[in-house]
Amino acid sequence: MFAVVPCLVCAQTVEQWDHYDIALTVPASEVKGNPFDVELNATFVHGNDTLIVPGYYDGKDKQGEVWKVRFMPTIEGFWHYTTRSSIQSLSDKTGTLTCTPATEGNHGPVKVDSTGLHFCYADGTRYIPVGTTSYDWMHASNAPAFSTADPGLTMQQQTLLSLGESGFNKVRSLLIVQNFDRTYPEPDAFPFVAIDGYDPTNGNAARWDWTRLNTRYFDHVEQCTEGLLKLGIEQDLILFHPYDNGRWGFDEMPREAGELLCRYVAARFGAYRNIWWSLANEYDFLRKQPISNWDAWTDAIIANDPYHHLISIHSYTAKYYKYWDERYTHCSIQDQAPVEAPGRAITVLNIYKKPVIFDEVCYEGDMTERWGWLSGEEELYRMWNAYMAGTYCTHSECFQFGDPHDFRRDFLAVGGKWYGESWKRIRFMRQILDAMPRPMYLPDSSWDPYTSACGPGYYMVYLGKQVAKEWRFDLPIRNSRDGFPRMTEGERYKVEIIDTWNMTITESPTIITTKKQDNYRMVAEGDGMIALPELPYLLLRITRID
Amino acid sequence: MFAVVPCLVCAQTVEQWDHYDIALTVPASEVKGNPFDVELNATFVHGNDTLIVPGYYDGKDKQGEVWKVRFMPTIEGFWHYTTRSSIQSLSDKTGTLTCTPATEGNHGPVKVDSTGLHFCYADGTRYIPVGTTSYDWMHASNAPAFSTADPGLTMQQQTLLSLGESGFNKVRSLLIVQNFDRTYPEPDAFPFVAIDGYDPTNGNAARWDWTRLNTRYFDHVEQCTEGLLKLGIEQDLILFHPYDNGRWGFDEMPREAGELLCRYVAARFGAYRNIWWSLANEYDFLRKQPISNWDAWTDAIIANDPYHHLISIHSYTAKYYKYWDERYTHCSIQDQAPVEAPGRAITVLNIYKKPVIFDEVCYEGDMTERWGWLSGEEELYRMWNAYMAGTYCTHSECFQFGDPHDFRRDFLAVGGKWYGESWKRIRFMRQILDAMPRPMYLPDSSWDPYTSACGPGYYMVYLGKQVAKEWRFDLPIRNSRDGFPRMTEGERYKVEIIDTWNMTITESPTIITTKKQDNYRMVAEGDGMIALPELPYLLLRITRID
Repeated sequence: MFAVVPCLVCAQTVEQWDHYDIALTVPASEVKGNPFDVELNATFVHGNDTLIVPGYYDGKDKQGEVWKVRFMPTIEGFWHYTTRSSIQSLSDKTGTLTCTPATEGNHGPVKVDSTGLHFCYADGTRYIPVGTTSYDWMHASNAPAFSTADPGLTMQQQTLLSLGESGFNKVRSLLIVQNFDRTYPEPDAFPFVAIDGYDPTNGNAARWDWTRLNTRYFDHVEQCTEGLLKLGIEQDLILFHPYDNGRWGFDEMPREAGELLCRYVAARFGAYRNIWWSLANEYDFLRKQPISNWDAWTDAIIANDPYHHLISIHSYTAKYYKYWDERYTHCSIQDQAPVEAPGRAITVLNIYKKPVIFDEVCYEGDMTERWGWLSGEEELYRMWNAYMAGTYCTHSECFQFGDPHDFRRDFLAVGGKWYGESWKRIRFMRQILDAMPRPMYLPDSSWDPYTSACGPGYYMVYLGKQVAKEWRFDLPIRNSRDGFPRMTEGERYKVEIIDTWNMTITESPTIITTKKQDNYRMVAEGDGMIALPELPYLLLRITRID
Repeated sequence: MFAVVPCLVCAQTVEQWDHYDIALTVPASEVKGNPFDVELNATFVHGNDTLIVPGYYDGKDKQGEVWKVRFMPTIEGFWHYTTRSSIQSLSDKTGTLTCTPATEGNHGPVKVDSTGLHFCYADGTRYIPVGTTSYDWMHASNAPAFSTADPGLTMQQQTLLSLGESGFNKVRSLLIVQNFDRTYPEPDAFPFVAIDGYDPTNGNAARWDWTRLNTRYFDHVEQCTEGLLKLGIEQDLILFHPYDNGRWGFDEMPREAGELLCRYVAARFGAYRNIWWSLANEYDFLRKQPISNWDAWTDAIIANDPYHHLISIHSYTAKYYKYWDERYTHCSIQDQAPVEAPGRAITVLNIYKKPVIFDEVCYEGDMTERWGWLSGEEELYRMWNAYMAGTYCTHSECFQFGDPHDFRRDFLAVGGKWYGESWKRIRFMRQILDAMPRPMYLPDSSWDPYTSACGPGYYMVYLGKQVAKEWRFDLPIRNSRDGFPRMTEGERYKVEIIDTWNMTITESPTIITTKKQDNYRMVAEGDGMIALPELPYLLLRITRID
């Protein structure tokens, strides 16, 4: 061992929460056996802080076999590192780097905030997830007959353009290619290496070497993830899914293959600050995978992620996984029942006591299956019901324009362009959410499902499908979470009428002065009536003045 | 040691699931120290089955100090036992008994059934909990100024009469006396022995010897529990509660006192087949008791209950305890939010995957506090919403007739007579529930919150607050739980219109023949309209004929 002398001049620099790659090349002649069996990590040290970062095999180049250790510095200042490996040529490599301050727009990875119920970035900035879903966008075909991208763009580029235009700040993406049906074109690459070659035209199931990953497949996922990062969008990476239908058999991989995949993905993508881990989509439809595999795969991710990225798992409608398991940071739920009316969703939050994202509540679209035939209004309504209750909700749209085998314009399936109506209103919704001083909650949830508070003196009342000429001021006195004081008599409030569908904000000319009705409710002096435009999907933003 | 020779002639007999007491008396001169510190148990053996049953100290009689071991035989046939104790005079006592078959009406203790979501008795008979609540009924004052019992009856007898007249088959009862307010009379007995005497007139908090229980207090609880047993009513015994307000200090007992209490109660009441353990009512309002105490007390109950009676704990509105903890057999929840509309409650069941009882959803009454001012209609509506979703719900009523300090006619507080309207309708509800072939569930819960199924060919549609001239036959095709087949075309159904408020059942003259609408819903051939009486709170019972 030797003493590490800080050398601020010679050190490489990297911005906080960006990533820094150590690339180590070994002549091919020195590598015996399966390179995926080689163990490698680097210990990064900053003062008293140490991070052990796993490395990964990145394939061959002209000089030989390449391994990388990808590091995300979490603290500004001087870091030094030393590698350890099961092969000598990768061991005891040392180096230094200086972590410079994060630049504008870089807030670090998202984590659970101090309330335990919401999210913030590593620098403390609030993060309100407003996500969408596009399962196969990273793997969508660029074949002319299947691509709906504008000329000169790949489907991936088209999807990124659409996302950039939207207000979404999270995307649920499948790591592994999806099989829509037999007519859907074969993808360009697969995550595992095929045994004896793989001929997609012969109709036989592929045979994979479950001990070897195709590193080029992950290059592409990496580029897509970086594309999201540039847009400030979180990559909610879904590691396993059941949508294979016997075509390639990735849903039936052995436990050890899944562990290799989890280790590899954690090592390779963990240094992206916009990564979230989603163990699976509809895990319970991977019929051959027992719960013990999900446990093992969860452990494999966590053991190889020194940054503790957000991690969850997703199941079929209303099946509810064991999100109380302390390994999961939040709930990723498929169920529309809690968001089909105001106030219901808070029960799920009250039970789990962790952030709740309803990651599938059916989708806007024109499909013949009911999970994909919502109107834009209904999609937006479900989202507002979730946010009003202090939970989160994820959008998508799936338009097929009459042909159930045509996935080309189905954003949920392959990304591309928007055809729906809700995405624009969700961008508007995000403005309303970003303006809140604190996360929403229902201060008197079991008695009043309509009124949410965002701290003292800041209320939202969502009228949903109600259509009325006027609304009578009537709010709960209780505002007790975080010790906020109860509403008192004589407070003055203004009311803004937000049309969540038509995207307008109109301030009511009526100023309210509060008066106690009983021990529970505060009404207005005088009649307290607020005139409304007789439209559905109105939100009242009621804020204290003075 | 000696061989036990079965002697069917000389053995005592006891009915299965009744209890058999071994009483052991020790001359007072032989007992040193605190008799509650004496360890005692008996090992009961039946073939290869062994139960270790804890004993308990039962006070003094003329012959000396008395200990008992109370045993509930779980299997018919010959049992023998041997005692073990920390004192010689209680050790190595042996005996035999013969367990005879259970007689009519004795089905044994209630347990979770094979679905994991519902209940049955030990003999396999279904048990559908339809409970009420009377916190202090066992301790209600019999002083003339406070009793509303009929002449010649104690308040406890009056309560048992009311319960016998009702359809309730479970009562939530506090083990420890409750302090309503300073004007409420001092109870006749306390669970612990006072230090230096206790003078209730001096206004000072009592000082208790937390190492010694008042065995006579438990005699009385025992008589009340036996009163319930004779009526076939489960005793949901609440061990701790926060309703003391500094009067006696039982809510602040030390951990060791709570452990003594739990051990004692488990030993003494565990042999009653109608016992359920409820660790607390609103445990979170016992501010001085950390979670570690609830864990310790839960363990103390379980370690001393060889019969594995049902066990849960109850918290304040919408606070939701960690019912996923494998020690708890079911959820005992305070929250009206999930039962204020059809279909919501199933989300709670879907999450916990254990039987769910909404043990507090506000009460029918005339109180000035909103948790006690429901109409009978609203109380009944909440209960139906719970049962329709495959969960359970607990009633009570609290009438004060204008004086918030008058608890004499408040069934929730002290028992006595009924003054409300819902209890009769709940008795009628129980007839409907008992007639079902299987427990209810919502076969397509996230799309249809109104339609419950009780196995194939048996549906219930609860119309709740809807008032309509007619109902169009329209049921989910999916009936998938437990592998039930989907509904097919050409099935014939009759429809009974059940008025849950007016307690009538009317069969519709219309016979329905099913016809597929789409992949999800089955409608009727022809118009399929069922005429309705234009009243709220209707339930449709739709059963297959042929």
